[in-house]
Amino acid sequence: MTVLAELQALLGADHVLTGDDTDSYTLDWRGRYRGRALAVVRPDSTESVAAVVRLCARHSVPLVPQGGNTGLCGGATPADDGKAVILSLARLNRVRAIDTDNDTMTVEAGCVLQALQQAAEQAGRLFPLSLAAEGSCTIGGNLATNAGGTQVLRYGNTRDLTLGLEVVTADGEIWHGLRGLRKDNTGYDLRDLYIGSEGTLGIITAATLKLFPLPVARCTALLAVPDVESGVQLLGRARQGFGAALTGFELMAGNCLQAVVRLFPQQRLPFAGESAQSPWFALLELSDSESEAHARERFETVLGEAIEAGLATDAAIAENITQSRALWHLRESIPLAEAELGKSIKHDVSLPISRIADFVRTTNALLQRDFPGVGHVIFGHLGDGNLHYNVTRAPDQEEAALLAQQPRIYGVVHDSVHAHGGSISAEHGVGQLKIDELPRYKDPVELALMRRIKKALDPTGIMNPGKVVRP
Amino acid sequence: MTVLAELQALLGADHVLTGDDTDSYTLDWRGRYRGRALAVVRPDSTESVAAVVRLCARHSVPLVPQGGNTGLCGGATPADDGKAVILSLARLNRVRAIDTDNDTMTVEAGCVLQALQQAAEQAGRLFPLSLAAEGSCTIGGNLATNAGGTQVLRYGNTRDLTLGLEVVTADGEIWHGLRGLRKDNTGYDLRDLYIGSEGTLGIITAATLKLFPLPVARCTALLAVPDVESGVQLLGRARQGFGAALTGFELMAGNCLQAVVRLFPQQRLPFAGESAQSPWFALLELSDSESEAHARERFETVLGEAIEAGLATDAAIAENITQSRALWHLRESIPLAEAELGKSIKHDVSLPISRIADFVRTTNALLQRDFPGVGHVIFGHLGDGNLHYNVTRAPDQEEAALLAQQPRIYGVVHDSVHAHGGSISAEHGVGQLKIDELPRYKDPVELALMRRIKKALDPTGIMNPGKVVRP
Repeated sequence: MTVLAELQALLGADHVLTGDDTDSYTLDWRGRYRGRALAVVRPDSTESVAAVVRLCARHSVPLVPQGGNTGLCGGATPADDGKAVILSLARLNRVRAIDTDNDTMTVEAGCVLQALQQAAEQAGRLFPLSLAAEGSCTIGGNLATNAGGTQVLRYGNTRDLTLGLEVVTADGEIWHGLRGLRKDNTGYDLRDLYIGSEGTLGIITAATLKLFPLPVARCTALLAVPDVESGVQLLGRARQGFGAALTGFELMAGNCLQAVVRLFPQQRLPFAGESAQSPWFALLELSDSESEAHARERFETVLGEAIEAGLATDAAIAENITQSRALWHLRESIPLAEAELGKSIKHDVSLPISRIADFVRTTNALLQRDFPGVGHVIFGHLGDGNLHYNVTRAPDQEEAALLAQQPRIYGVVHDSVHAHGGSISAEHGVGQLKIDELPRYKDPVELALMRRIKKALDPTGIMNPGKVVRP
Repeated sequence: MTVLAELQALLGADHVLTGDDTDSYTLDWRGRYRGRALAVVRPDSTESVAAVVRLCARHSVPLVPQGGNTGLCGGATPADDGKAVILSLARLNRVRAIDTDNDTMTVEAGCVLQALQQAAEQAGRLFPLSLAAEGSCTIGGNLATNAGGTQVLRYGNTRDLTLGLEVVTADGEIWHGLRGLRKDNTGYDLRDLYIGSEGTLGIITAATLKLFPLPVARCTALLAVPDVESGVQLLGRARQGFGAALTGFELMAGNCLQAVVRLFPQQRLPFAGESAQSPWFALLELSDSESEAHARERFETVLGEAIEAGLATDAAIAENITQSRALWHLRESIPLAEAELGKSIKHDVSLPISRIADFVRTTNALLQRDFPGVGHVIFGHLGDGNLHYNVTRAPDQEEAALLAQQPRIYGVVHDSVHAHGGSISAEHGVGQLKIDELPRYKDPVELALMRRIKKALDPTGIMNPGKVVRP
């Protein structure tokens, strides 16, 4: 039997897609990578996933696991040689258990993130992972890429939200590691090795995740901030003043929000005059276990001191949940506004928070020296040291001309990140986009260790080849 | 040259101990394991550690890394064949950097934990790792065993407090991974693989650790609790009512605290009458970012509701820092009181919090059936599902008779832990104490993966042999 016939016999012909039916799986979300696949298979249980892996291992057929296909680095798109099988986890989409006394839920890889947020909320709990693609990304993809998002400051990355995993290994065996334990020191941390490995070591089929109490109230404030240094000092004051109640701290260059309100007139800044023209803004979110009034009172005390200290020039505290949402909406609209203005060259970088101000200053200057007139669209999760540092065309420049400079712009920005002790991929992963950038910036000892791990756990190299690390 | 002569040439004779000078290094802290060593070496830099590893690798001499030698599982004690070299990290004891804007500190493996707590406090920050041995254990040992302690509920285990590592690999190469980044998705998570590997994959020589704001106030309360179920419900209410301000939640059987006040008359329970005879007690700690008055007011509101709901029968809220310390001191004195009462059989286990009540009930019954009259000394970090579940002799039993039953008692308790979805080593690790227990309780796929990792990162098996996993 051919591989295809064997897959059909195993899963039923309905769940083995070929030809045009594979199109939406072989193109990545941003439309940057178009691969080809022998087939897309859609197993509906861990056992079936394991059987597919064994079958592919027997025939030396490469496997590309795929969740919601919303990744930004081409990590779920196969090569264009048409040899790989895409293994979609979409049908493994059950919430297996919610344990409110243990504050955990056990879910399958194909669950959509937003559905999990809702399932937790219906049980009176918070699952805090939150990011732009939450309506279509799956928890399996979040785990494979160790997704970040807007609540990392308080709750951590996907890694920090995970207690246990179920994994199909590259040999097609099942590791039953769905532990719901806060402490377990019985050997090597395989969990965190699979998390963030982007499907190159095995396939995560289910996870036991942490839940948290629902905050009684959430309150948001927008501040006009004179410069990045002040933003960093403001973050320090906010951490001191609010403790763990501080659940969000975003920094945005003024031109980002100014573009949002220009392009989307239904949105408004809560400031007029000079404050609306501020060179930087900070968005702060408090999650309070007492009341909305208490959250606002805390904001007033601590932000008042920050303004007196000159760290901010103005502050607008949301009066109610509608106003809070409107402030967050400003932040979330930046990528849309950016897209309206044309293609940009995007960087997802992180830095020690103490070096961010210097990073922005020096990198802006380097870019202006080498690419005069280009625009800077800078925003991100300052509380995590994570900047989306994007570059747009100069006023007199064609879009194509900017895109032609992409490799050189990458080089300037990533060299500067490296020189400042940062990471060239904060939350999006490596995929195929950055696989050949890693050797330039990674400690060679670390890269060699990664290759050893890859060889040990996927000796035949069938798991998502061409992603993260080359053999 | 002999290995010894080479080591002396490398480090100077003063830092290569032999014979009787090795005695304090070859006996573990609890006096359970006595090994022998070819030598104890005390390098004072990462480069020297790497040179020692290369030298030992060349001669196939096993290496046993050692920090403060306070481990509870014999993980830092060599075999008694006298072939191994103990590598003490004690002289790598510098705080390399404290970065208050980034809230990180970079420290060497041999720093004593308490010294790091103090260094952080002097910089106006909190380093929250806290455990009984903090006056002599070292951060390198804490990292090697992923130490837990009393603040895990809020701040996590050592793993969760670590951003970057510097590691000498089993080949004697140096991985420079001292990143101070909250987000970094550029490849496999080697950091968490080395953390908790107990020196069997390489030697951690330095780490970049997270710092937190110092709480403005800390307040403690002791509650009389009718049973474990109520304790679990109380934990849920406290998490909901206090959010992340809840930094400690300990549960203790009544006999533990009653023994403390009987044996140490200078200590007193804050209750009289029936409450002092409560079958269980809970100790709660709030860390507040506002004021002591605010913390007490929060305690009064939430604990008042808990008492009304019947989850506790009495509560004493500390009026000041002295009273808070006195309440913690009761908890911390349990192991001392236990030691006064004779040797006990100790278990460091964790469970899903939702199954703890059933675990205690069924395991107590199983022990009474098989070992009538033995005593139960049960206390632990309920917020983390971590119990120290210890067994003492029956009133008419000789200590030796109890100790002779140890393997069978281990079997009963660990089988019960396993049946309840728990872990047989919550925070102490595996070492040599539990290495042969793992195959009984660990998923065989997981054990096989661990062996592959060991083989990949330490192919010649020189790193701390006989610990964690056998080849």
